[in-house]
Amino acid sequence: MSHTTTINVSGMTCGHCVSSVTEELTGLKGVENVAVELNAGGISEVAITSTLTLDPAEISEAVAEAGYLVVANNA
Amino acid sequence: MSHTTTINVSGMTCGHCVSSVTEELTGLKGVENVAVELNAGGISEVAITSTLTLDPAEISEAVAEAGYLVVANNA
Repeated sequence: MSHTTTINVSGMTCGHCVSSVTEELTGLKGVENVAVELNAGGISEVAITSTLTLDPAEISEAVAEAGYLVVANNA
Repeated sequence: MSHTTTINVSGMTCGHCVSSVTEELTGLKGVENVAVELNAGGISEVAITSTLTLDPAEISEAVAEAGYLVVANNA
């Protein structure tokens, strides 16, 4: 079964930011796909598809590792 | 003798952009230092210090290689 978790992330401004966040989230166990709707200068929406239910703390940590902040987790 | 070339670059929005541009310009022959004053959402100023006089075309090419556009060369 596939789960989709949608989070809001601040501070992402360009394709490099998208790559960094995608790379970190893809490294989480069970993650199959990461789709980012970039909103430079605002809040970007990140949809994470996974085979397992993801731990919100782990998601926040991965995003922080990339250098950004989760401002909402709509899991 | 040391030369300083100052250029204006559009489209740079974050630290990753600064790294990309710095890396490309540092690769040019004679370049000693690259200093970027980032203006996200506007025009960033890039100061290049070099031992040789730099060719404006080479600078533009290096910046384009990083994915950005030189909008003025105040050499």
